[in-house]
Amino acid sequence: MPKEIEKKFAIYKDRVNQYIATILPPASAGEAKNLYEPIRYAMEGGGKRLRPVLLLIACEAFKGKIEEVLPAAAAMELMHNYTLIHDDIMDRDATRRGRPTVHCKWNPDIALLAGDGLLTFAYRSLLRVNSPHLQKACQIFTDGLIELCEGQSYDHDFEHDDGVSMAQYLDMIKRKTARFFAICTEIGALLAGASATHTRLLRRFGESLGMAFQIQDDLFDITVAQEILGKDFGSDVKRRKRTFLYVHVMTHGAPEYRARLQRIFHQAEISAADVLHAGEIFRDAGALAAAEQALQEYLQEAHDCLKRLEPAIATAALHAFLEMLLKRRS
Amino acid sequence: MPKEIEKKFAIYKDRVNQYIATILPPASAGEAKNLYEPIRYAMEGGGKRLRPVLLLIACEAFKGKIEEVLPAAAAMELMHNYTLIHDDIMDRDATRRGRPTVHCKWNPDIALLAGDGLLTFAYRSLLRVNSPHLQKACQIFTDGLIELCEGQSYDHDFEHDDGVSMAQYLDMIKRKTARFFAICTEIGALLAGASATHTRLLRRFGESLGMAFQIQDDLFDITVAQEILGKDFGSDVKRRKRTFLYVHVMTHGAPEYRARLQRIFHQAEISAADVLHAGEIFRDAGALAAAEQALQEYLQEAHDCLKRLEPAIATAALHAFLEMLLKRRS
Repeated sequence: MPKEIEKKFAIYKDRVNQYIATILPPASAGEAKNLYEPIRYAMEGGGKRLRPVLLLIACEAFKGKIEEVLPAAAAMELMHNYTLIHDDIMDRDATRRGRPTVHCKWNPDIALLAGDGLLTFAYRSLLRVNSPHLQKACQIFTDGLIELCEGQSYDHDFEHDDGVSMAQYLDMIKRKTARFFAICTEIGALLAGASATHTRLLRRFGESLGMAFQIQDDLFDITVAQEILGKDFGSDVKRRKRTFLYVHVMTHGAPEYRARLQRIFHQAEISAADVLHAGEIFRDAGALAAAEQALQEYLQEAHDCLKRLEPAIATAALHAFLEMLLKRRS
Repeated sequence: MPKEIEKKFAIYKDRVNQYIATILPPASAGEAKNLYEPIRYAMEGGGKRLRPVLLLIACEAFKGKIEEVLPAAAAMELMHNYTLIHDDIMDRDATRRGRPTVHCKWNPDIALLAGDGLLTFAYRSLLRVNSPHLQKACQIFTDGLIELCEGQSYDHDFEHDDGVSMAQYLDMIKRKTARFFAICTEIGALLAGASATHTRLLRRFGESLGMAFQIQDDLFDITVAQEILGKDFGSDVKRRKRTFLYVHVMTHGAPEYRARLQRIFHQAEISAADVLHAGEIFRDAGALAAAEQALQEYLQEAHDCLKRLEPAIATAALHAFLEMLLKRRS
């Protein structure tokens, strides 16, 4: 990635953090500690601010002003952290970014309320945008949130379902992960005053990028060492998640692989040895290769969306974002 | 209450229910069952639709058109049910309106997600309003939601705090209960195009009404029989809630009463006999009378707000609403 774009991303991340600090009440106010301490804890956990940066560079590609859309960018990060807190409760996850999750550090009631609060602060931030397109932006944001709930619901339903198809899996990650990236790119373009056609292309770019991101996340669970990943190696397997890899084996794998994977997933406890065994099955049954291929296809789609915007629009930062996102940790 | 106003409220309730049905996906769609079944279950639990009706008559008082603000009215009911589902999780309540709560009928994870979904559908509904005042209405709604989280946080903090002052209690119910009624009246007036002064008066009317409503609720816990109330007699006492009655005894009662009440609230289990005993303390220490007086003062404030609007504005329906709300179950 060109040095000046790397620097730009770092600056934008700082701007977002500064703006978020203006949205939340300061710690010194001392108000409603059991609401605001967990909220600040979550927001100060050192996230990469990927989604707000994406919104800002999408806006900038259409010559929109960063300052004017900062409240929308901050809203994306507040919303993201709402989903993390509530998902962690539902997934019983004990750690996030190397620290105890909110429901473990405090308790599930406090985490529930902190998540509710963050979602509301996300709207407060978004509603500070001054734009004739604000109502439309809020609608895109809200529709995306509803799809996110649907995706989360499917994800949990799938945990007890051995017959998840690849179409169901792709639909689930589209709602749960990809849609959120699409919200960022679409709102960024919309608020910059992009045409309907261009806004649609940016939305598709965000969605393809998000699909690639999630499939890569599924792959990394079993291909990247714990120290690099910052989360437990094989944690998807241990939690019996229906990832791309699992679904591919169960829908495309030879009967022998399916039976072996089924046996692992139906055990009362899944050990570290089981995780390694599952990894071998994923490799031997061709799921790793299939995931890699799907990832490349979504990446190609994302690049194609950008190419259709060129040379009318400067897409260098968006290309660089894609590159950075998909090169993380590898 | 005049018959024609009673009829009007019934018609408005039906209109709200019809509108809500257009916001949620139909059951026949069969989508995301573990998200939408609990949402529909909550919305079909037979609520009185008090808050949306209040918004509609506030709007009508300023000659606003009901049809144009129906999406905002429906948003209030969707939002109300989000708070009920999440509060029930936090309070470990097993029944609501005579039926199992969502987290008991399904599980806390599903209830968490159903609440999240309802909050988002509330925004979807509100964002369908066509009005130059929509951004402001969304801001009022959002600010109110944040105060609601704060109120809920205080409510939970207070459960482990013997030293809650009357000012703290009143601040808590203002955020947790009264603010919501104020949102309804303020948004109703705003969307009807009322002046800033009139909108502020309507907001104060809603807040006073909400304070009276909550204090009455505290009173009813110990003064109204279970069959009439539809919730357990003395359930606030059993859950060690810092109600008006408890706080009044602990801050204004004679040492003897304080000690007796403290003993009850510090027991591992609070029995039916303890509830009756607490009721006697509330009566003898003057807390029932003080609550009754506070209730009347808030009622008077609410009436005063309306009087300041007359005769410029027709307030008959708002007076009738107040009367209906405070006469319920007694």
